[in-house]
Amino acid sequence: MRTFPECVPCLMSQMLYALEKTSLMKDEKNEFYYRWVKEIAKNVPQTTPMELATSLHKEIRDLSGEDPYKEIKELSTKLLKKNERLIRSHYKRSQELSDILSLVICGNLIDIKSHAELGRLNMEAILEKGLSKKFAIDHSETFKKRIEDANNILYLGDNAGEIYFDKYFVKWLQEKGKKVYFVVRGDNILNDATLKEAKECNIEDYCFKVINNGHHAPGTMIKECSEEFKKIYKKADLVISKGQGNLETLIDNREKDIFFLLLTKCPAISNLLGTKIKDAVIVYNMKLETE
Amino acid sequence: MRTFPECVPCLMSQMLYALEKTSLMKDEKNEFYYRWVKEIAKNVPQTTPMELATSLHKEIRDLSGEDPYKEIKELSTKLLKKNERLIRSHYKRSQELSDILSLVICGNLIDIKSHAELGRLNMEAILEKGLSKKFAIDHSETFKKRIEDANNILYLGDNAGEIYFDKYFVKWLQEKGKKVYFVVRGDNILNDATLKEAKECNIEDYCFKVINNGHHAPGTMIKECSEEFKKIYKKADLVISKGQGNLETLIDNREKDIFFLLLTKCPAISNLLGTKIKDAVIVYNMKLETE
Repeated sequence: MRTFPECVPCLMSQMLYALEKTSLMKDEKNEFYYRWVKEIAKNVPQTTPMELATSLHKEIRDLSGEDPYKEIKELSTKLLKKNERLIRSHYKRSQELSDILSLVICGNLIDIKSHAELGRLNMEAILEKGLSKKFAIDHSETFKKRIEDANNILYLGDNAGEIYFDKYFVKWLQEKGKKVYFVVRGDNILNDATLKEAKECNIEDYCFKVINNGHHAPGTMIKECSEEFKKIYKKADLVISKGQGNLETLIDNREKDIFFLLLTKCPAISNLLGTKIKDAVIVYNMKLETE
Repeated sequence: MRTFPECVPCLMSQMLYALEKTSLMKDEKNEFYYRWVKEIAKNVPQTTPMELATSLHKEIRDLSGEDPYKEIKELSTKLLKKNERLIRSHYKRSQELSDILSLVICGNLIDIKSHAELGRLNMEAILEKGLSKKFAIDHSETFKKRIEDANNILYLGDNAGEIYFDKYFVKWLQEKGKKVYFVVRGDNILNDATLKEAKECNIEDYCFKVINNGHHAPGTMIKECSEEFKKIYKKADLVISKGQGNLETLIDNREKDIFFLLLTKCPAISNLLGTKIKDAVIVYNMKLETE
């Protein structure tokens, strides 16, 4: 995805948030921040927000020696572990694809930023809200057919808490006899799931294999990924892509059948797909016309 | 006020919003936007957000030949005219300074951005919310004494809708025998009140004189203001400053007794004053220690 005007302030706010979570000194934070404000300004719109975010957050991690999102990922894991029975009981109610999709989209509603927020989060309310969402773009009929025809499925995960929902979609696919490779990021980046969170979630119990993609972008830049990932990607009959980051990096891809499953959370992606903010979508890449 | 890191994305989002409201072509908007993104990045933190916003919004008005905030100001005026009796009836209930201040702070809660929002806005709910606010910083005891001692009072207005609330504070001051000069901006800038909105509000019925400050900043940069303003400012025994823009430009001023009356709406100003976002404050400049 190219740069939209809204991506510029969004990148800067994201940088501020991440710096705030490190234990760097105030002067170091400011020096880093204003240097990167200039760097972003110089490189937009010709450089994509994904490329900028990838380098920017890597530099924050390298400079501070910390993962600013460590706490959020731990909080998400704690919340989801505590409430997994709720997801499981919803999963058991119906095995229809449409119900699974509605359940899986709930995972994208969780966006924990602090201990205080964790205390207020009510999983039953999240589920109620998510399950009642209509899909603003719904290519699930085609999705159903493509799943039936597929053998190897590549499932690209997104955030740490979210994978507890993905797990039940993966389980459903495995029970249909599919060989599912579940993919996480190659290193810590934002609140995205890595092998650590995938292991805590025991997602490997429900799929053929969990791998990391070997790269630290908050999306999937195929060229930058590991050889192992590329091999599995090449073999895959179908790609399921969760969340905005994966959509940003794969939206112009037409070499594979990709289904994007997400809530459109920012003006750039909402404008791109023609949806409203917080709309749920299941979008088939081959039906998309993008620049 | 100096630049805080949060001011950078905020300025850019404000610019996007203003450009969106003009009828410029998409290419013109983008060219302007990315040019100013670079300009802002180059000039922060050494140039203040107020200086940047002032030039930036003037250029948008000059380039487009339009006032992007015209509609908002008309909507605010329409809403307030329709509901003025509510403000009046609250005003009549008590003539205590503390009650007037609680009423006047409600004006800062109105922030209309669209026709749709106007339809949803409920003035009774706004008043209920505003009147129940406790002041997070409360220098009103000193304020009361300074008002008693003052003869000439300079009252610096803020947004278009808000002045319908200011009107009753001005009325109260006039009834106490004070000579009140009510000041609006010298030209259209954001949704700030100018002579046009002051006239529509009939605020001149309740004060000695309404003047514009002769400048187009969304605050009060005294050096840039007209000779008429400077003369009245010099004579004033007391300055009442409404809203964030006036605080930004006058916070380091110690040559006059200034009382800032506002809701702290952004992280920069909340951090500066040590309040939370949306806290109400009445702050005496002589009691402030700022950089």
